[in-house]
Order: sequence, then structure tokens, then C-alpha cells
Amino acid sequence: MQIALDAMGGDLGPQELISGALLAVERDDLSILLVGDEQVLYEYLQSSSASKALRDRLTIVHAETVVEMDENPVDAIRRKKDSSIMVAFDLVKSGDAAAAVSAGNSGATLAAGVRKLGRLKNVARPGLASAFPTLKGPVVIMDIGANVECRPVHLYQFGVMATAFSNLYNVEKPRVGLLTIGEESGKGNTLIKEAYNLLERSSLNFIGNVEGRDVFQGDVDVVVCDGFVGNIVLKISEGLAVATMKMLRDEILKSLLAKLGYLLARPAFNQFKKRVDYAEYGGAPLLGIKGIGIVCHGKSSALAIKNALACAAEMERLKVNDVIAADLAKGFDTVSTG
Amino acid sequence: MQIALDAMGGDLGPQELISGALLAVERDDLSILLVGDEQVLYEYLQSSSASKALRDRLTIVHAETVVEMDENPVDAIRRKKDSSIMVAFDLVKSGDAAAAVSAGNSGATLAAGVRKLGRLKNVARPGLASAFPTLKGPVVIMDIGANVECRPVHLYQFGVMATAFSNLYNVEKPRVGLLTIGEESGKGNTLIKEAYNLLERSSLNFIGNVEGRDVFQGDVDVVVCDGFVGNIVLKISEGLAVATMKMLRDEILKSLLAKLGYLLARPAFNQFKKRVDYAEYGGAPLLGIKGIGIVCHGKSSALAIKNALACAAEMERLKVNDVIAADLAKGFDTVSTG
Repeated sequence: MQIALDAMGGDLGPQELISGALLAVERDDLSILLVGDEQVLYEYLQSSSASKALRDRLTIVHAETVVEMDENPVDAIRRKKDSSIMVAFDLVKSGDAAAAVSAGNSGATLAAGVRKLGRLKNVARPGLASAFPTLKGPVVIMDIGANVECRPVHLYQFGVMATAFSNLYNVEKPRVGLLTIGEESGKGNTLIKEAYNLLERSSLNFIGNVEGRDVFQGDVDVVVCDGFVGNIVLKISEGLAVATMKMLRDEILKSLLAKLGYLLARPAFNQFKKRVDYAEYGGAPLLGIKGIGIVCHGKSSALAIKNALACAAEMERLKVNDVIAADLAKGFDTVSTG
Repeated sequence: MQIALDAMGGDLGPQELISGALLAVERDDLSILLVGDEQVLYEYLQSSSASKALRDRLTIVHAETVVEMDENPVDAIRRKKDSSIMVAFDLVKSGDAAAAVSAGNSGATLAAGVRKLGRLKNVARPGLASAFPTLKGPVVIMDIGANVECRPVHLYQFGVMATAFSNLYNVEKPRVGLLTIGEESGKGNTLIKEAYNLLERSSLNFIGNVEGRDVFQGDVDVVVCDGFVGNIVLKISEGLAVATMKMLRDEILKSLLAKLGYLLARPAFNQFKKRVDYAEYGGAPLLGIKGIGIVCHGKSSALAIKNALACAAEMERLKVNDVIAADLAKGFDTVSTG
């Protein structure tokens, strides 16, 4: 299986991205198309200490330009048809790659994916999903930022798409919850109340409303919300995790005994960090397009890139898009006749 | 100064609430009206080990009924005019108490406060504010759940009210941010874009959009959002804090060495917990009403109740409502002529 990686995007530069690709091809069944400036990528690849066998599984595909992180996404992909992110999705469209992965400008990746590949049948709005760690297994939240204004049917469809995606985590009959501000039905704003009715009549395993505090308990597998709320949840969680660890560290550094204690407990801290590290979760799939696209955090490490590439490969292997199309066809019937 | 405490509300029962009141009256200038079942409260008060001098500063005011935690708020306050929360606000209305504090049914406290006391002049929608710990000082977020559908002017007014409230934290010219999903102006949904324009033209110290990850950095003093988003932020933060500590504990308990380390570092952990404990932050003031009302978490400990009572006293001392009224009068001019 071949996957296209936008090797120019991201805050850490091509070297980190290429390191991620080299980690990914340790899996036998994968090869990677590195998309970007031929000269630059060639030099990085040459200077890598990876074995020739691994390097041979990476192929450079030239792209003339790059969409910068701070460019307006829609403008940028219109002007820069030869940018690495556009070429990556071209490769998906032509069938040369099963998926495109980028840690570059998120908005541009989103726009390029939708523009180049188009929507799956019956999908009103593609959206971004993301897995988060909980006390039990991961929870998939959708939409985490693609659609800032949603209608009830979009939320219902996010439920269908995220359910299909959660196959990656071997969840049987994923429990779907609607994120709102009270558990009883009827709690929330108009959007939520109407989405509740659609979800309740659908064939999803809908367990009703969930509150923010339930999300990380591990008793719900899929959480549905609009992209404005979802993006705030994502960023609040990131910000809180960073602030929490920093506050705890500050307190520990105040006392010698606590510092010693910390040293002894460090392996546990590291395990904990691994468990909550977004890098372990392989980026955010753009669901609802005719193909596979993964948006990675701009600061993605090589490990995060490797996991995103593996996530793309799993989506292809499990035919997530076929499941989405089939479920939406079914679901729409339920909703329209229900 | 006299403050009315709904001594029947909350998950932990009257004993915990009375303990909180007894802690609060260690401050010389405060006395508390305990509102609730005379017989029940009298017995708890008698069985307390606090000094007679302290107990003498608590006065029981009888209320016949209680709004239960799971009752529909609006129904309940209509039916139960003699409930502890309604009587507490009656005491504010009659001038016998400077403020009412309740850890009971939040919705009923909110509804009772607005119904009994009415809105301050120019306030379109009263709302709930709450202080959160950050890497630096606290940040005040408003609205955290009173208004699930907002118009731009409501968000602007939340900025004015929360700014006045942040006087409690000795912030000079509090920096006000608008919570959205990108820092550039123009990012967010329609509500956000229009609220941005109002805030920009106001006399507030508006620093523009802030993202979820900025909230806990301590570089913004007041964060404005609608009550749906704000409540989700509140609950996500609570849920994540609990889950994070639990995951970290799980990892630590797996290894003997880490356990030993944890024991050594425990004072630092406890300091950290104190720093992030909501109980330290004294409940959520209902801002925009003609009087002072504080909504406490249902699980409020005696310490949390004490801090909420102290917060109410500070709001009275600093005349937060006068500041709100004056600033809104001013701000409205700016907005309408700007």
C-alpha cells in the first residue's frame, strides 16, 4: 500500500517528517510517496542514517511550492495548485496513493481534500475526527473544527462517520453520545435538541446526551458535536494538559524531597505522558471525502507522523469509507421515513 | 455584613454547609443566615463542636421546603415559593442579607435569583461567571451555563460584567478575550464575528480572540463565551482534571519505586491539588441581577462554601454591581455611537 506524505508541511520541517516516514515503513506492507521539493527532500533522505532497504521504500514526488502555515487556506489552494498538499491529494485522486497525510496548514489540507476528492455520496459536510485518551479505551470526537456552523443532520452524519472510524479501535457497536450541557434529553440549544431526535431515530448505538465530564471516563466511544465546540474541546484539553503538568512540575521543583520523589516516579510519569500524548493517536482523519486524508498537528513528531501514516493504512485496510457510505445510505432511510 | 446561605441544598447535606458557614464567620465582619428546616438546622448546629461565639453568628431562618437537585428549576421555583433557595433570595430582596449562596439545584438558584431580584439596568441577560486557575493568576470565564443561546450583545455584556467581577482578583485593566477557534479576527462563527466587533468598539481592554489553549496560560484575565460553550469548557476541564490525576495514579501504583517516589513528592501533589481545586475559587457568581447570588457546585465541601461566602462578601464590599451598572451605561453609549 502506498501513502502520500506532504513532506514540506509542519512546524518541525522535512527532516522530522521523513523520520516519521522511515518509522512507518518498518511495516512491510507500506511504502511512502514523499511530496515536496525534490532537491531538498533528496538531500535529507541521503543524510538519513536509515538502512537502504527502508529508504528504498520512500519515493520522492516533486511539488513546486508549499502552502505556508499562516496562509489563507482557500486562497492558497486556489493559487498554489502545484503545492505539496495539492500534489499529495492528486496522487490519491489518480489512485497512486491510498491516502494523503499532512502536518501543514490544517485549513488548506481540509480544503484540498474536499476540493480534490469530493464528498462521499450522501455526505452533507465532511468533518474532522480525532481520538482522545480516556480512563478506558480511546474516544473519537467529531467534528473537531472543520464546520463551525452545523445543522442537525450534520451532527447525525458525524455520528455515522465517527462510528465507522472507531472500527480502528476494535469497538463493538460503538456507543455514540451527543455533547451537551445536561444529560436529560431536551438539554442544550436548538441544534442539540434537533440532532438528538435524528440520532435517536437512527440505527446508531445512541446512548443520549453526554456532558464534558463524561468524555474522559471511557463510557462513550463516539462523541458528536459541531466543529466550533469540538475545536474548543480539543484546544482546552491540550491547554489544560500542558498547564497541569507545568503546575505540578513547579510544585515538585520547590522541594528537594519532592524532586527526589519525582525522579523515582519518573518512569510512571513517562508512561502517563505516553498514554495521553496526542502523538500516539495518529492525527485527525478528514471523514466524508472520497478517499483518505489525515490532518496532523503542526508540531507533529516523527512518532506522530508514523502513527498518522499507520492510521491511514488501517482506514484503507478496514475500508472505512465503504462502511460510511453503506451506513449513510441506510441511515438516511431511517431518518427520512422514521 | 449578613449573607443568606441555602442550608438545605447540595449533595453533602446541611452538616457540610453549616461547617462552611462556621468557617466563614471566623472573619469578624460576617454573619450568616442559615435558611432551611428550622428543626433540622437547629439540631446540626447544636451538635457542632464550634465555639458558642461562632455559633452565635449564625441565625436560622425557617424555610418549609427544598428544591431537589433533579427537579425542573422553573417549575420548582414556581411551585415552591417557601423553599430554602427562594427564602434566601427573599432575604436579599428585603435587605436583610447582602447576598444569597446555594449549592442546591443550580438552575433553580439561577431562576430564583433572576425572578426575585430582577436584572440590573441595561443587562440583557444575567449569566454565570467562574474563576479558573492558570499558570499565573485566575481567569474569569463567563457565561459558564446560564444562557445556551446568545446574541452578540450578550457576549459583550458578559465581558463588562466579568471585568467588574475580576476586581476581586486585583487585576488592573483586565485583559478580555473572546473564546473562539483561531486567533485572527474573523475566525469563528457568526456570533463570534459580531461579538468581536462590539467588543472591539467598547471601552473594555479587549485583546481579541483567544483559543482554548490560551485560557490556562494566564495571559488573559477574562474570557467571554456563550453559556453552551462555557459550560462545556467547565465540564471538560473538570473531567479532564479528574481523569488525568487518575491515570497518573494508575501508572504510579504499578511500580514500587514510583510509589515510594510519590510518597516523597506527596506534599507537592497536595499543593498542586490545592492550586487547581475549584473549592478554592468560591463558586460561580450570577452576575447581572440586582443583588448578589452565588451558585456553588453540588459537591461543595465546607471549604468551598466558606470561600463562596467570602466571595459574596467581597462582591458586596467592592460594589461589583455598581461597577457593572456604571460600565454598562458607559459601554452602551460606546457601542451605539461607535
